[in-house]
Amino acid sequence: MSAFSATDHALMAHALRLAERGLYTTRPNPMVGCVLAQGDAVVGEGWHQRKGGPHAEVFALQAAGAQARGATAYVTLEPCAHHGSTPPCADALIAAGVGRVVAAMRDPFPQVDGAGFDALRAAGITVESGLMEAQARELNRGFLARIERGRPWLRVKLATSLDGRTAMASGDSKWISGEASRHDVQRWRARSGALLTGAGTVLADDPHLTVRLEDGSDVVPPLRVVLDPGLATVARGHVREGAAPTLYIHAPDAKLPRGVAFEHAAVPAQGTRFDLDAVLRLLAARGINEVQLEAGATLAGAFLSAGLVDEVLLYVAPVLLGERARPLFDGLHIDAMTQRLKLQRIDSAVVGDDFRLLLRPLPAPVEAA
Amino acid sequence: MSAFSATDHALMAHALRLAERGLYTTRPNPMVGCVLAQGDAVVGEGWHQRKGGPHAEVFALQAAGAQARGATAYVTLEPCAHHGSTPPCADALIAAGVGRVVAAMRDPFPQVDGAGFDALRAAGITVESGLMEAQARELNRGFLARIERGRPWLRVKLATSLDGRTAMASGDSKWISGEASRHDVQRWRARSGALLTGAGTVLADDPHLTVRLEDGSDVVPPLRVVLDPGLATVARGHVREGAAPTLYIHAPDAKLPRGVAFEHAAVPAQGTRFDLDAVLRLLAARGINEVQLEAGATLAGAFLSAGLVDEVLLYVAPVLLGERARPLFDGLHIDAMTQRLKLQRIDSAVVGDDFRLLLRPLPAPVEAA
Repeated sequence: MSAFSATDHALMAHALRLAERGLYTTRPNPMVGCVLAQGDAVVGEGWHQRKGGPHAEVFALQAAGAQARGATAYVTLEPCAHHGSTPPCADALIAAGVGRVVAAMRDPFPQVDGAGFDALRAAGITVESGLMEAQARELNRGFLARIERGRPWLRVKLATSLDGRTAMASGDSKWISGEASRHDVQRWRARSGALLTGAGTVLADDPHLTVRLEDGSDVVPPLRVVLDPGLATVARGHVREGAAPTLYIHAPDAKLPRGVAFEHAAVPAQGTRFDLDAVLRLLAARGINEVQLEAGATLAGAFLSAGLVDEVLLYVAPVLLGERARPLFDGLHIDAMTQRLKLQRIDSAVVGDDFRLLLRPLPAPVEAA
Repeated sequence: MSAFSATDHALMAHALRLAERGLYTTRPNPMVGCVLAQGDAVVGEGWHQRKGGPHAEVFALQAAGAQARGATAYVTLEPCAHHGSTPPCADALIAAGVGRVVAAMRDPFPQVDGAGFDALRAAGITVESGLMEAQARELNRGFLARIERGRPWLRVKLATSLDGRTAMASGDSKWISGEASRHDVQRWRARSGALLTGAGTVLADDPHLTVRLEDGSDVVPPLRVVLDPGLATVARGHVREGAAPTLYIHAPDAKLPRGVAFEHAAVPAQGTRFDLDAVLRLLAARGINEVQLEAGATLAGAFLSAGLVDEVLLYVAPVLLGERARPLFDGLHIDAMTQRLKLQRIDSAVVGDDFRLLLRPLPAPVEAA
């Protein structure tokens, strides 16, 4: 374990902030930031902006020029060692003569996975890894989930009343949360590689599932994904309008409608119930890092019961909808207090009149024998 | 409308903080703070500590001595003009020769209600009222509710899961909220004149309904009130233990158990359903300013449906209990989104692993003709 200095921490924190600038655009690539410093003086910085474009290290080296020689490079992810869309960053750092590389974490991507560090060390460069790794992992939790486990990070977005209801018995859910919350959701959509919904939500709410940001941010439009076992909604809805692509996932025995062009993929299903793990694996295979589910209690409950939910983004509106209204998660059958599902609070904020909570399910406790 | 200076505001804010020191002890009296100042120099201060003891003005005048002459008195409530447990404060201020009295608000108590201001003005003292009145009303909302409308302020305390459930189907509710929340509740109990519960909660949870504070605060023990139509729980439960008094409210036709001494009062009921407005009026008549309901979804829902709830103190635990668990408010039948019950957020805080929300029901919107 290296003993990192306060300067190391400050410069890595800066590199992480740089990396985060790519939140809406780098996917499927990870966000990466790089700071080149002589002591505590920054001589170059950069971040990865989009797939196919230069990596963070390249921008930083360009900015530093001759001052890169003998500098320390702070990188939020292990420099790449392979020829992808661009040449290996490890080689560029070596060529520039940097003296030391501090990384937040190793890149689990199979074509890197330690090879970047090896190349740097072979060239005589001091390499240290693990500085602010937790923060770096948090930033790229989508990318890491996809690479390390073959499933994207799944965020379930729900708007609920104080009494835990997501829609009236009739299905009406417009609007539980306030305008500020609906605006806030756009930022979470913007960081998602895919926005997932169900045929029921398309029919009931007819969402656009596009990103509408007013601050001029550059956003790679997330893939819209509709779970529609029988392809009943293909010809309708705002979800097919606009510039963002839309993918319909259907049961293998679904009859493809004629005369309509649309992107689709089959996933195993039992009746109308998809193999949800397979749905997510299919999206991972398409390079999706983060999936945001925006659907009703049925799909939210199904993903939760299947243990596939990584985080819950909950907008709690200060209203009561009463006991006849629809629950937060359908099909969550818990009989005893000991079986309750615990979540960890990650973040909470007031958004307009609502409260926004970000929570992550905790693993179930091991029962005493 | 008087133009109050920055000094006026600062000194009234100080008087309000002094008043709040009586939060756990002054009932049934209002909390009152008083600051005597020469310009912006405080020459005396005081607050009302408990019923029967000196009023805030008396403490402040004692501290100021001769410096009270020509001073401005900042009082959070109109000085009294009547002989209660103590002589009129208006007379004391006149005798001390104060030059100006700034009050946050008029005292609606029938024996004062402007008579204090009148006496001061008659003595040639400048009187101004209305500075930080909203804060003063907030502080004494219990006292004001009792005096102005004949009903105490009703706070409903509930612990709920994220999915709006207050107990398992079995009735088990131990524990939804965490230890920090259960500790936090004690402070809200301490400010309450009565802690109200139902026979069902006595049987299911057997609460003590006492105040347990570890900081050595002086607390007048709140009256414990059990709504028990048939007096079925009189002989049992922690709610009769300890030093705090307990009152059983029963239906007029309830049979009084023999051989058990207990305080009781009858309130009109239809079957097991009390006239809840009458319950609250009975408590107001006994000098209760703030009532905290600590019961299950049935009573909480009944008070809410009757329009008698002033605020909801909600501890939201980061757990899910599932759709079979009991709702937040029983009997809340809402069929359309337009009928939803809206609340105003007054305060929100993280308490341990939980979220604490303080909310107040908003009046229902007038329907368009």
